[in-house]
Amino acid sequence: MHIRIINPVITTSWAEDSQRTYANAANPGTQVSVVSLDWGTASIESYRDDALATPGILHRIVQAETEGVDAVIIDCMADPGLHAGRELVRIPVVGPAQSSMHLAAILGHRFSVLSTSDRDVPWVEDQVNRYGLSQQLASVRAINIPVLSLADDPEATIQALIVAAEQAVREDGAHVLIPGCTGLAGLASRIQEALATQGYDVVVLDPPSVAMKLAESLVFLGYAHSKRTYPAPPVKEIRWPF
Amino acid sequence: MHIRIINPVITTSWAEDSQRTYANAANPGTQVSVVSLDWGTASIESYRDDALATPGILHRIVQAETEGVDAVIIDCMADPGLHAGRELVRIPVVGPAQSSMHLAAILGHRFSVLSTSDRDVPWVEDQVNRYGLSQQLASVRAINIPVLSLADDPEATIQALIVAAEQAVREDGAHVLIPGCTGLAGLASRIQEALATQGYDVVVLDPPSVAMKLAESLVFLGYAHSKRTYPAPPVKEIRWPF
Amino acid sequence: MHIRIINPVITTSWAEDSQRTYANAANPGTQVSVVSLDWGTASIESYRDDALATPGILHRIVQAETEGVDAVIIDCMADPGLHAGRELVRIPVVGPAQSSMHLAAILGHRFSVLSTSDRDVPWVEDQVNRYGLSQQLASVRAINIPVLSLADDPEATIQALIVAAEQAVREDGAHVLIPGCTGLAGLASRIQEALATQGYDVVVLDPPSVAMKLAESLVFLGYAHSKRTYPAPPVKEIRWPF
Amino acid sequence: MHIRIINPVITTSWAEDSQRTYANAANPGTQVSVVSLDWGTASIESYRDDALATPGILHRIVQAETEGVDAVIIDCMADPGLHAGRELVRIPVVGPAQSSMHLAAILGHRFSVLSTSDRDVPWVEDQVNRYGLSQQLASVRAINIPVLSLADDPEATIQALIVAAEQAVREDGAHVLIPGCTGLAGLASRIQEALATQGYDVVVLDPPSVAMKLAESLVFLGYAHSKRTYPAPPVKEIRWPF
Amino acid sequence: MHIRIINPVITTSWAEDSQRTYANAANPGTQVSVVSLDWGTASIESYRDDALATPGILHRIVQAETEGVDAVIIDCMADPGLHAGRELVRIPVVGPAQSSMHLAAILGHRFSVLSTSDRDVPWVEDQVNRYGLSQQLASVRAINIPVLSLADDPEATIQALIVAAEQAVREDGAHVLIPGCTGLAGLASRIQEALATQGYDVVVLDPPSVAMKLAESLVFLGYAHSKRTYPAPPVKEIRWPF
Amino acid sequence: MHIRIINPVITTSWAEDSQRTYANAANPGTQVSVVSLDWGTASIESYRDDALATPGILHRIVQAETEGVDAVIIDCMADPGLHAGRELVRIPVVGPAQSSMHLAAILGHRFSVLSTSDRDVPWVEDQVNRYGLSQQLASVRAINIPVLSLADDPEATIQALIVAAEQAVREDGAHVLIPGCTGLAGLASRIQEALATQGYDVVVLDPPSVAMKLAESLVFLGYAHSKRTYPAPPVKEIRWPF
Repeated sequence: MHIRIINPVITTSWAEDSQRTYANAANPGTQVSVVSLDWGTASIESYRDDALATPGILHRIVQAETEGVDAVIIDCMADPGLHAGRELVRIPVVGPAQSSMHLAAILGHRFSVLSTSDRDVPWVEDQVNRYGLSQQLASVRAINIPVLSLADDPEATIQALIVAAEQAVREDGAHVLIPGCTGLAGLASRIQEALATQGYDVVVLDPPSVAMKLAESLVFLGYAHSKRTYPAPPVKEIRWPF
Repeated sequence: MHIRIINPVITTSWAEDSQRTYANAANPGTQVSVVSLDWGTASIESYRDDALATPGILHRIVQAETEGVDAVIIDCMADPGLHAGRELVRIPVVGPAQSSMHLAAILGHRFSVLSTSDRDVPWVEDQVNRYGLSQQLASVRAINIPVLSLADDPEATIQALIVAAEQAVREDGAHVLIPGCTGLAGLASRIQEALATQGYDVVVLDPPSVAMKLAESLVFLGYAHSKRTYPAPPVKEIRWPF
Repeated sequence: MHIRIINPVITTSWAEDSQRTYANAANPGTQVSVVSLDWGTASIESYRDDALATPGILHRIVQAETEGVDAVIIDCMADPGLHAGRELVRIPVVGPAQSSMHLAAILGHRFSVLSTSDRDVPWVEDQVNRYGLSQQLASVRAINIPVLSLADDPEATIQALIVAAEQAVREDGAHVLIPGCTGLAGLASRIQEALATQGYDVVVLDPPSVAMKLAESLVFLGYAHSKRTYPAPPVKEIRWPF
Repeated sequence: MHIRIINPVITTSWAEDSQRTYANAANPGTQVSVVSLDWGTASIESYRDDALATPGILHRIVQAETEGVDAVIIDCMADPGLHAGRELVRIPVVGPAQSSMHLAAILGHRFSVLSTSDRDVPWVEDQVNRYGLSQQLASVRAINIPVLSLADDPEATIQALIVAAEQAVREDGAHVLIPGCTGLAGLASRIQEALATQGYDVVVLDPPSVAMKLAESLVFLGYAHSKRTYPAPPVKEIRWPF
Repeated sequence: MHIRIINPVITTSWAEDSQRTYANAANPGTQVSVVSLDWGTASIESYRDDALATPGILHRIVQAETEGVDAVIIDCMADPGLHAGRELVRIPVVGPAQSSMHLAAILGHRFSVLSTSDRDVPWVEDQVNRYGLSQQLASVRAINIPVLSLADDPEATIQALIVAAEQAVREDGAHVLIPGCTGLAGLASRIQEALATQGYDVVVLDPPSVAMKLAESLVFLGYAHSKRTYPAPPVKEIRWPF
Repeated sequence: MHIRIINPVITTSWAEDSQRTYANAANPGTQVSVVSLDWGTASIESYRDDALATPGILHRIVQAETEGVDAVIIDCMADPGLHAGRELVRIPVVGPAQSSMHLAAILGHRFSVLSTSDRDVPWVEDQVNRYGLSQQLASVRAINIPVLSLADDPEATIQALIVAAEQAVREDGAHVLIPGCTGLAGLASRIQEALATQGYDVVVLDPPSVAMKLAESLVFLGYAHSKRTYPAPPVKEIRWPF
């Protein structure tokens, strides 16, 4: 089984980390490959970034199916290009946010998303609404560290996440927590342990891992998105530079 | 007052019609100009089309503000680029679908959207949900004529719309109707009259006209979208061919 | 175009202010006239007041249509008589609350209403629910100054509004604000500027202005409420003192 | 215990029937009295009728409390004046629609309302939404017999109700049925029996009876509406002909 | 009329209190009898307790109908066995939580539940959602005193309830309050008085009393749950120790 | 990895089929074991059956954890004992309905459940509501073949499923289908193929397979339900025959 990870930015320095993150979550026999974009933005933190990333993501999704890849994961909590990409292929296209939010709804009463910036709050609330899970959302809490600075001081990042997570549990009634950026991959267990120390017995999900298990499960079972929801676009003239 | 209409496709043959449609709905002193896209698709009928149109739309929106235009209307019922475009400028960015759906909710109990294709149904339902108006939606009914064929046999198109509208009123409880494609501009009054003849005293909106009045109203009052919902994107590296 | 403003109270001293407020928001060629009630209450701050105002409002609405007026605005954020009035006429009947709440939903993620009294909170929440916009409501915050005292110390009123607005933005997540009484007409820009000074880049609507632009737009486009939602009442015996 | 029934119309011929209907549902020791209105309409079938009835209803509600009556029932499925009336008194004010809809939600999965006219459909849907029970509503079905003609051919009325009820159960999934006009009082058991004959084991409520038991229960337990929801209106000038 | 109270635990010491509580709320001619369980738990504070109580409750419900009892009340705010029990009999089966929550929705804008433990919060929120009343729920607030310790220091219990109630009203917007355990029966009026002293004019319900009046009303009117919602289970093999 | 399947009935003849079904969906290294109940019912088709099954299921869940099993699947679409079982253990407890419904929501716009009996309809609608997915539910359609007769004429069963599925897609707008009984395991692909032949390009899930992949994924990632949602019950006296 071959799962393709699309790093939906022009920042290629993350590719190696992504490779390791996703390979760790994969079954022994699963092949993991990572590609980045030729055109797009350095990170995805706005509707604008999402819009500029999506054409390149679509290209990578079609390419993956052509190459015989079994499923695609878009490595970003905005799930950019998820709907459009599903129109173009029959292999599963998986978003870490959609996968994690539904798993959170399965595992507990309400979940909170720990996002990187206050500006994400309306955006994530809309996303949860689109996925039909508003009733299960406890809150969106931001740590206000830009995506491109998350790795500058990893300890500061994780401490900020723990503070936000603790507030989400104590004040907002969160029972499951979702780090709201795949740049936070691998920190879930540290947050969960810190909360356990404070007496909060909650679950913190690692969205890339959740996405990987969903992608593998879909391939194993021969499932993909419903083509009745995501039919192939009508044939028409397209003019595009790449 | 200068309102810029963005025809969000590479099909320039519609520009003249758009100019006339929007000018008819404008106040005497309002200047109307229409621009099309350099890159994109011939029509917008899928998430893929929407994704390929948006970068070009964003370019046109920024260009409009730079040129001193007072407001922008994106001439498509998908409202493509509405959220991303609002991040980039302070002048109002108006979508015909969002404007018409809210006006429909003001004028009657429930509204139906008359879309061009069955494949739009899930898509329009999601759009209505994103705009927070699911409670007011009676139904989405399709006439199943491709966007690029709507003008081939105008009489067949309008008859199909009347049939779908009548079903929406009688079977689904619609009290207000919205043609779901700006390519149907100008047909609203014909549909409304036909339904009146059948004893259905309903309102059929013309989305371009609604969008024009909203754009003028916002400019007159000095209003635009809240920048707290649509803050400017963080500065970052962008690599883009155009 | 002639727009009739119904000042739905027996307090005639507000009529001149209303005339000026609405005329300021009108297009150059629009005629604005204001009428008050013969029977009713001095202000509308309860369901009781609403009930006693409505018969007189209905009378004024029918009178307006008979006189050839093009549209009617009921100058009160309770939108008293909106539904009943629409049953009686074919000209548009516009409520400042309904217009402003839908515009707020168009312009930003969530809105708050700044009401005059804590007793309005359940009432406004019910109103927002009736208009189908509960999902977009951030909060209702009260300044607790009686309607009839709003003008006693204008500066105190505006300072109280700014405090409530700031709390709505910071604590409740409001991105658009609506003063919840037409007696607060004209203060919107002062509140918006004060919030901007504090770093909150939000929109504050002036409901009478919003209602005026909607009324003009409806008349321009030849639209009114759907008579399928608001059919004429069956003919029957009525006994009434005025 | 003394329960006052307000027949909220100027049609006094119904008073005797109302007296009998409510007395039949009352406990042995309960005194039942019926009053009609001096001003208002012959029946309540529109927002206009509701508006013209409410001032007279408020007068009757205050009068009842002054006379030492223990609770008031407004004998109409529009529950006219329910909210305004509760502001003015501390004794319970009960509406047959509100009582019956909540009881229906207790007794089964979904309920349908059998209304007299198609024009009631949006109106009843709004009412159910105001009472917070939209999730439990299966449908509103109309028999299209005017309120003032319900008694012209009683057998035709009941047969129309049975047909509508059967459709509501079979097509809409109703498990409990509510006749949507107090002019249909006493017919519930006939409808229920007819449906049982057809193999539909459902419950049909008689709203006046439900309202009577709720009123008695509230008086017995010393409960009334929360004055925090329905505070007394502020004192102010009122000008009113009666 | 004979109403059977099922004390759904193995703790028989509460039976006498229950007898008195329910008899106090009953009409003069109503006979009240109380039975406890042979198998189950000492109290119901978890899904596990609910599961172990339900088989015994079902036994008691069938027994009651066989004995000619007119209606059954399950004396616990978890309403354990409510749905399953209704499948097995035609006499009304009443739950204090379901009855009280619907009455709370009738009497005021929003209600809060005062539960015994923080662990009940997700559980009660789910219950309110199942009853279709989430829109009317202000909050669930816990006093964190175990059910089996509520009577250890009655004054401490009531003071904790008053504090929680006051917070629910002031911070969460509750207008009606429901003690969330039938072990708190009889304390409602004390809480209401204490809040009145603090200036909060709200209603505090006593769920057993509400359940008794509902049971009596249903018997009086000849109503029960809809058998279309709660049909008798298909006949099949059952293996069970008691 | 060892996954325990609880066949939550006293019918042991299904155990072998269950073993095969779940083993087919398992990864190579996963051990699958099946246990049935000592006490309970022959099938689960009512709230009563669910109530009688749950105590035995809880016993099997605790037993599984004690024996070192890694996760438990309750092999029934009622997910009986899911919430109570999660209170008692820290290993994942998985329900086929909850897993499948969330996966359906991930893969398409709306899903329908194909249940065995009309009597399940209210029950499944309530279940979907409890899982927070009502917005994604297209319909519940029944084939009206008792659970214990599903295997009597397998071809008739599958034809009935295909008819119901086709109606769900064409009339109700379903894009994903879920067979509503684990006794229908293994038929999903046949239904999907039949619908594809009719031109309906939808996904039909096999709930046991979905549950198995979720259980394996949770064990692999070290996740389980949040103990803040499902805390261990307080220690108390329990009297129970087995």
